[in-house]
Amino acid sequence: MFTLDPRLEQDTILLGEFVLSKVLLMNDARYPWVILVPKITGLTETFQLNNEQQHQLMRESNFLAQALNDLVQADKMNVAALGNVVSQLHIHHVARYQGDETWPAPVWGKGQAIPYSGDEREAVCQQIKSALQDLLQDAD
Amino acid sequence: MFTLDPRLEQDTILLGEFVLSKVLLMNDARYPWVILVPKITGLTETFQLNNEQQHQLMRESNFLAQALNDLVQADKMNVAALGNVVSQLHIHHVARYQGDETWPAPVWGKGQAIPYSGDEREAVCQQIKSALQDLLQDAD
Repeated sequence: MFTLDPRLEQDTILLGEFVLSKVLLMNDARYPWVILVPKITGLTETFQLNNEQQHQLMRESNFLAQALNDLVQADKMNVAALGNVVSQLHIHHVARYQGDETWPAPVWGKGQAIPYSGDEREAVCQQIKSALQDLLQDAD
Repeated sequence: MFTLDPRLEQDTILLGEFVLSKVLLMNDARYPWVILVPKITGLTETFQLNNEQQHQLMRESNFLAQALNDLVQADKMNVAALGNVVSQLHIHHVARYQGDETWPAPVWGKGQAIPYSGDEREAVCQQIKSALQDLLQDAD
C-alpha cells in the first residue's frame, strides 16, 4: 500500500491521480506549482522505475508541464526531481515568470510559502483540474 | 545547424554525444555534474520535443543518471530542466552527497564553481566517458 510522505502530505493539496502518479498542488500561492508522485513504494530515483513506468511518468510529466504552461502562460517551466529533503520520488513542475519572487533562481528553499486562501485555493484547484482533465482521475 | 548556447559552451567540457543530446561535464569540481542538451534548434521545454524525441531523451537521461549515480555512489541524484538563465533546453544531472557544499539545497546559484585542474579534468572525463560508453559516441 503506497503512502505519501508526511511532508508532501502537509505541504500540498491533492488534485487527483494520473495512472502512475498522484497529482499534488503545492500550497504556495507564489507559484503555480504541481508535483507528481509515482504511487510506488520505496522509490527515490526515476531510473528505479521499470521501462513501462518510465514511459508513463514521461507522458504524465510532459502532459502536466505543457498543460500548466499553457494555462498560466508561464515564461519558463522548471521541472525537477531533487529529493534532498524528502527522498520519496517526486517531480516538481513550477511555472515561472520573469519578475516572480525568486526569478531567475530556483524556487526551493527561498522565502516562505504563502498558503492559498480558501476561495483562491478552490478556484486554482478547479482551473488546474480542468486543464488536466484528459488524464486526471479522482483520487481513491 | 545546431549551435550550443555560449554560456553552456563556456561552463562545460564536451564528453561526447548520445543519439539525441550533447553530453557535457560541468566544469565545477565541487559536484559530479553532467548536462544533456538535445541537438535541436530553438527548444526551451521538454514537451516541445516530438514523441520519439521525448522517448529518446528519457532513455538518455535515465541512463546517464543511473550511470553517474553508480560511478560516484551518490546519496541522491538531482535531475532538472530549469532554463531561467540559459533558455536553450538542457537537463542537469547532479550527483549529490550529504555534506557537499550546498546540501540539502539545490546547487544552482550557490557559491562559485571550482574549475577542474588539468590532470583532474582528464581523469574525471575518462571515468565518466567509460561509465557512459554503451551510449556515448565521439562528438562530431
